This record gives sequence, structure tokens and C-alpha cells, in this order.
Amino acid sequence: MHRPLILVTNDDGITARGIRHLIESVGELGDVMVVAPNSPQSGMGHAITVGDTLRLTESSVFPGLAAYECSGTPADCVKMARHFLLKEKRQPDLVVSGINHGSNTSISVLYSGTMSAAIEGAIEGTPSIGFSLCDYGFHADFTHTTAYIRSIVQQVLSKGLPAGVALNVNFPARREEPLKGIRICRQANAKWVEDFVERFDPNGRSYYWMTGSFVNFDKGEDNDEWAIANNYVSVVPCQFDLTAHHAITQLNNDWEILG
Amino acid sequence: MHRPLILVTNDDGITARGIRHLIESVGELGDVMVVAPNSPQSGMGHAITVGDTLRLTESSVFPGLAAYECSGTPADCVKMARHFLLKEKRQPDLVVSGINHGSNTSISVLYSGTMSAAIEGAIEGTPSIGFSLCDYGFHADFTHTTAYIRSIVQQVLSKGLPAGVALNVNFPARREEPLKGIRICRQANAKWVEDFVERFDPNGRSYYWMTGSFVNFDKGEDNDEWAIANNYVSVVPCQFDLTAHHAITQLNNDWEILG
Repeated sequence: MHRPLILVTNDDGITARGIRHLIESVGELGDVMVVAPNSPQSGMGHAITVGDTLRLTESSVFPGLAAYECSGTPADCVKMARHFLLKEKRQPDLVVSGINHGSNTSISVLYSGTMSAAIEGAIEGTPSIGFSLCDYGFHADFTHTTAYIRSIVQQVLSKGLPAGVALNVNFPARREEPLKGIRICRQANAKWVEDFVERFDPNGRSYYWMTGSFVNFDKGEDNDEWAIANNYVSVVPCQFDLTAHHAITQLNNDWEILG
Repeated sequence: MHRPLILVTNDDGITARGIRHLIESVGELGDVMVVAPNSPQSGMGHAITVGDTLRLTESSVFPGLAAYECSGTPADCVKMARHFLLKEKRQPDLVVSGINHGSNTSISVLYSGTMSAAIEGAIEGTPSIGFSLCDYGFHADFTHTTAYIRSIVQQVLSKGLPAGVALNVNFPARREEPLKGIRICRQANAKWVEDFVERFDPNGRSYYWMTGSFVNFDKGEDNDEWAIANNYVSVVPCQFDLTAHHAITQLNNDWEILG
């Protein structure tokens, strides 16, 4: 029987607790290969490294596993992994990214390095999943995610995903009561409202820290914010076609300068 | 009469020729404020600066204009500009980004810092447009874009854009014959196939340069690649809701673990 090849990456870097938990969760389901950033890459969005060099070195973080540290972004990791696997005439059967330390629900999907790795996998036609835990704490408890990760990965390995779709899976922070189950969701209508905290360096010149508060405008019960707030695992199918198809007709009708 | 406030940014950095041409093109249509990266940010996707500091300093690149150089990404520039304008109880009426030196058609929209600035504007509810020229050359000719930029900006200032939509505008490289007009398009189905060129540093350790070739799978005539190839200006309305809505029903039907 074909044992699937599972490519694991993340955006918190190869030494993060989250990627270790993800590897332990999927290890029995296939052969695992790790290509992850050698430093934290949070907030990198779908950045790639152009106009600069990349390093890729073997890693000793996971003894017994094929593991590599990459100097680039999460999307770079997926691109490099595919390239070097292709030389061996192999390709991953699944890309999993995470577990991210912190939420990637709603609009955060755009800024998420975790999800950019999954979307990069989907662009290449590989079923791909990004996992995030809505708990930023260093000592965050990941244990409630294990069974769900295995179930979701098994479903995706056996049934695949619609073409061009990657999954954005978020877990609520661990509570006393167990998780209620999975909800297939849409991305909630919400955004970050930034603040910039001004400080002064020893030379008296100003610099800023970006901070933000999350504002949810969405009253629905079919979105990822609602699912997380109600102790469900949220699963949002995401696509890389950004076209606002509904707007094409309107622009064609309204504009007077198409000639 | 209200004179609109136009926020200009880019991803090639404040000293690039493209942003200068964009400022000159829109200067008569409103008050211009420039907040642009202090270094090239190509390929940054929707990256933002978290876990690091930001600098924002006045710039002398455009005498007579309110111009600032930011140490962050294009999305950071839009966030910082909005924040400091808000303190003065002002907000931009339009965000324009570019002109990018190089194409941002098709899948490149995901990697594009130019478009991430425009999408950041759209998240905030401001009509926003990213402009790119399909010519990477330092001495690229931008003159054929001027009249189209003005027309598009005037249309958007007078008619607005659908909620949650930013425009991805690409211009063909200058040819002998004039541009044929504007096509409202969808994002073409195409991707980059990467290659990694290995080199060795003076210490004998390997490093890599990412290179790529663009592969277009799309046979349609309603997409941006077709428009550019046929000497039209391509305009793709883009959205920041990544939900693959068509996949929600399928996952709900197929999966057995919703619990």
C-alpha cells in the first residue's frame, strides 16, 4: 500500500512547539518530511524571496526525520521542498502547515505565513491544510487538537480536496469542556484596527510598534469567528483566485473608458 | 469643491521611477500624500511587520509633497498612513500603489507587494488601485500609461468601487502601436514553475537563487494574460474574502467527522 508523503512546514520556525505537535500528530499517517523556516516568519503573508539568496540546510531538531531549515518564508519552504523532491521524482501527497501559535481566522488569513504555505501547496495541486491554535502563549496546550488533526488529515488523504482549495483550520484555545466538533465555515467579516506605539531610541529618534485590536462586524453563525467563540474547530476552504467575479459585470456596465 | 486626498505607495521603494510616474499622473486629480517603503519590497505579498519595530521619516524625494519613507512593507505603509492621517481627522479618498516595475497579472497578485497595499486599502473601505507595468527594465517607458491612469482614477473617484474590491491594473510594455483600450478581466489560471540555481559561497557552503518560468494554462479571452498579450490594459477586480464558497457544501456532504 502506498504510504503518503506528508510535507510539514510552519511560520513560527522549525523550533516552535506547534510544528513538533503537528509532526507527532501526523507521523503515523505517512512519511514525514520537514522543511521549515530557520527563524520566526509571523505576518509574512504570501511573501517569497526574490532578489536575495536562500539557504537550505539539514536540521537535527527532529532526529530520524528528513528535516531541513530554510532561510526563507513559508511559501519559499514549500517551493524549495517541491523542487528538491522533484529531482528525486517524488512529490508530497499532502502539505500541512502549523500548528500556528495564534489565531488565523477571518482577515488574518491574508497576513498568515502559515496559510500562505498551504495556499502555495494548493497552487501546485497538492491537498494542503494550515492549522492554527487560538492561543499565543508559549506554554499553550495543544493536546485537544491531536485527534481532530488526525481525522482531518485522514479525510483529506482519502477524499482529496476540490481543485484550487486549501483548508484554513483553527482550534479554540483549550477549555475545560471538550471541543464540540467541526464547522465548515466562511471567513468572518472582521478586521484589525491598528495602533502605533511611539518610542524613542537612545539617539532620540522615534520608532514604532504596531499593535492592533480585532473588530468583528459579522453577526452570522456560519463563519470562523463564531465557530471558535462557540468551541468548535473552524474549517474554511480558501482559494487563490482573488477575482471578485461579481464585480466584473458592474465595472463593464459603469465605466465609460473601455474603448 | 472637495479635493480628494490620494495616498500613493508602492513596493519598489520610494526612489523607484514607477512611483514618480504615478505621482505625476495623479497629481492634478487631488492632494497627494506619499508613504512608501525606504527599500525595495518586491515579492512581499501581504506581509506586515509584527515582532519588530517600524521607522517613519519625512522624505525629500518629492519636494513640495507630503512624503514619508517607511521601513516596513507596502501593507505597513498603508496602515501607518491611515493611522497618522486619522490623528488629523483625515482619511484618504483613494489609495494608489505602483507603478510596479514588472507584471502582477494572474497568480502573481498573491506575491505582489503592490497589490497587498491596494487590498489593505480595500479592507479599510477606501477605493484602491494597484498599477503595474509588464516591463522589468530600469529604463522602461511609462508614457503610454499616463492617460489611462488618469481615466481610471477619475472613474473610481467619481463612481467608487464595489465594497471589498480593489483593482489590479496591468499595462503591457510599450509597443509601437497604441494601447487598444481597457478589458475588465478575471485572474488567469497560470502559475510559476520555480528552479533553484545553486551557488557556493567563499567558504564552500551552498546557497540558492530562486528563478522561475511562467506557465499559462488558460485558453480564455476574458483573463488578464490574454488582455496583456493583446495590448489591452487589464483590470481585475480583486477581493480579500478568500473563502471558496462553492466548496462549503461539498465538504459538509463528504466529511464524516463533523461531530
